[in-house]
Amino acid sequence: MTDAPTPGTPTPGTSMPSTPPHDHVESDALAEFRLFRERMNTRILGENNLVINRFFNLDGRAYEGGVLSVKTKELLGLVASLVLRCDDCITYHIVRCAEEGVSRDEVFETMSIGLIVGGSIVIPHLRRAVDRWDETEKMRGTT
Amino acid sequence: MTDAPTPGTPTPGTSMPSTPPHDHVESDALAEFRLFRERMNTRILGENNLVINRFFNLDGRAYEGGVLSVKTKELLGLVASLVLRCDDCITYHIVRCAEEGVSRDEVFETMSIGLIVGGSIVIPHLRRAVDRWDETEKMRGTT
Amino acid sequence: MTDAPTPGTPTPGTSMPSTPPHDHVESDALAEFRLFRERMNTRILGENNLVINRFFNLDGRAYEGGVLSVKTKELLGLVASLVLRCDDCITYHIVRCAEEGVSRDEVFETMSIGLIVGGSIVIPHLRRAVDRWDETEKMRGTT
Amino acid sequence: MTDAPTPGTPTPGTSMPSTPPHDHVESDALAEFRLFRERMNTRILGENNLVINRFFNLDGRAYEGGVLSVKTKELLGLVASLVLRCDDCITYHIVRCAEEGVSRDEVFETMSIGLIVGGSIVIPHLRRAVDRWDETEKMRGTT
Amino acid sequence: MTDAPTPGTPTPGTSMPSTPPHDHVESDALAEFRLFRERMNTRILGENNLVINRFFNLDGRAYEGGVLSVKTKELLGLVASLVLRCDDCITYHIVRCAEEGVSRDEVFETMSIGLIVGGSIVIPHLRRAVDRWDETEKMRGTT
Amino acid sequence: MTDAPTPGTPTPGTSMPSTPPHDHVESDALAEFRLFRERMNTRILGENNLVINRFFNLDGRAYEGGVLSVKTKELLGLVASLVLRCDDCITYHIVRCAEEGVSRDEVFETMSIGLIVGGSIVIPHLRRAVDRWDETEKMRGTT
Repeated sequence: MTDAPTPGTPTPGTSMPSTPPHDHVESDALAEFRLFRERMNTRILGENNLVINRFFNLDGRAYEGGVLSVKTKELLGLVASLVLRCDDCITYHIVRCAEEGVSRDEVFETMSIGLIVGGSIVIPHLRRAVDRWDETEKMRGTT
Repeated sequence: MTDAPTPGTPTPGTSMPSTPPHDHVESDALAEFRLFRERMNTRILGENNLVINRFFNLDGRAYEGGVLSVKTKELLGLVASLVLRCDDCITYHIVRCAEEGVSRDEVFETMSIGLIVGGSIVIPHLRRAVDRWDETEKMRGTT
Repeated sequence: MTDAPTPGTPTPGTSMPSTPPHDHVESDALAEFRLFRERMNTRILGENNLVINRFFNLDGRAYEGGVLSVKTKELLGLVASLVLRCDDCITYHIVRCAEEGVSRDEVFETMSIGLIVGGSIVIPHLRRAVDRWDETEKMRGTT
Repeated sequence: MTDAPTPGTPTPGTSMPSTPPHDHVESDALAEFRLFRERMNTRILGENNLVINRFFNLDGRAYEGGVLSVKTKELLGLVASLVLRCDDCITYHIVRCAEEGVSRDEVFETMSIGLIVGGSIVIPHLRRAVDRWDETEKMRGTT
Repeated sequence: MTDAPTPGTPTPGTSMPSTPPHDHVESDALAEFRLFRERMNTRILGENNLVINRFFNLDGRAYEGGVLSVKTKELLGLVASLVLRCDDCITYHIVRCAEEGVSRDEVFETMSIGLIVGGSIVIPHLRRAVDRWDETEKMRGTT
Repeated sequence: MTDAPTPGTPTPGTSMPSTPPHDHVESDALAEFRLFRERMNTRILGENNLVINRFFNLDGRAYEGGVLSVKTKELLGLVASLVLRCDDCITYHIVRCAEEGVSRDEVFETMSIGLIVGGSIVIPHLRRAVDRWDETEKMRGTT
């Protein structure tokens, strides 16, 4: 049940750049998250389990631009991660939103919908999400 | 712990028109959903529990246009409802998306993200969501 | 892996009276729920799977009075069922709350906490919960 | 963002036979479930959304025999569906388990683990799961 | 979409005293939780997103005394947090329960209902909840 | 509401050996998990809450061999923990799988089903699960 990766296909699940923009300082939390993520993705994909590898590939595809823009899709990924209360998924989409030029107000409006839909149980994840967003702003020198 | 509804404030949670557009045929399933929803909202709000009434009001506010458009917010509500697997919430946002002019392809791309994030457990809800969407198209005479 | 039911032990999971109070009218929805519940509980317990039967027994025990009253425990069961969005569990605890003399205001305050904690995704279940509560009031002739 | 189905590939998500074994009687509930499932799968796949169609295909692949048998994988699908409390998913895997020759005791042991892991919130789904299992036994004339 | 905080309104979501009782020793874990919580609440509320700020306010309101006592409401918050498996929410309500004079036995009975409803998946959170409760007892010098 | 532990009964919830196999090196993460788990289990069981203690006992029973093998039951526990996204539960079953001689391929096939059923939200837990599995292999000297 193995599957050779299609040559030329970008490694799935690695749309985050493997190194942060070179003239910025990456926070420790974001750096640790990125490194563990890359190390484990490599290990998991190297196992060559067909279903898992194709799922990772499909996961990357889902966020590519279509009739909806990449930016809108990242907001969809963010709100879905927020109501399902997955900190790592939230961090991933927060970083991607920053890369796609989403504004601070857009992130907060997206999070407000996640909060209303998901309730107060979402608040601890909201705190960490905002903390992560602030880190991305520091990296970009906008704060 | 009661709270008089502010006069002039639109009844919260009733952004769906209380009657369907008069020159269209509403499906039985959508009509039944709408009527139960309206009947119970009236009963719940009439209880005058401050926390519940304010929450219903806030729920309506969250989807008003801001830096994000009403349409984008409805897509966010749809994907959040899909991954949390709430059929009634999905139906509500499907109807609202149709009212806001969301296209069939936009709905399917939004649902594809909900499917990837939430997994195969989402599929039964996806089936009902597509069935509902098809009903809204029939109402609008677009199919 | 079977386990003979201890004689004299009340059948677990059947704290709801097997027939409604004889001078009251039971609604169709509540009657149907009760009958399916009783029929399937009998079938499941008759299978004599030790783990399942002991779990059902333990489930009954958890709501017996201790340092917390039966009434408080039913409110705890109600709010837990609400945030986990299980309609049948909600119906069960709504009926039990009615039997324990919980007031309408107490039920609504309990549900308001479930709504805040669980978010708008809880609303469809809240509607059905209020509908069920109203049915129990009609049965008791209090409305 | 469309994708032509590969010719010769079995339609994903349709491992349940499109008609029940011809010398058995199918229950109304199972027949209704199967027909809605088939009708909507056709409609969804006909939309040609690449991500959705590939996900459906992958979903079928995940349950094919590998180092684990098809039967074991169906038990895994059943327990996952039970703890996530998805009635349609449970029904699907109950039918597949019956097709794969899983015994009644094996199903109950699998469900006992789902009950312990997921708690009493699982019980309403357990009742419907047992009801479905009994229907499959009637179809096979084993009860 | 901003909203000036009403003067004189207690900052929502900050019912935990901003400093622990001055003659007690606060554990490192509880202190770290409290400080991060306060810092991020300030940052989030300072954003002046109307929906988020009103939600935080409403969240505080929901636990005020009504026909149910503050203590009972904190038990409801605790069991809801436990079955939804949110460690930070559990910690918050554990601390609030201690402040409201809830007894150790009352906390354990509440947690036993959370365990039965939510299943073994709750156990890791139960372990941390008991650890937190023990810390509050040490702070009060009752152990 | 207390219950004396039955003499001779293995302490529930402690099927993991209280010390790791003596000729292997245990990773820090696994050792820390095991020690906290044992310390808190002792504290919780010492409280003598009848419902909690019986639940812990039943939790141990559910994974004993029956018509399904211990190994199959551990795979069921693993997939259930994965789709419910509980890292500690995943770690526990990963260790138990290793003890029962489950192969690396069997673990990956089980995880592939958890991934398909639960979606991309499972991926962060999958990363940590694979990391834990690799640690168990190092302990056994198989890598």
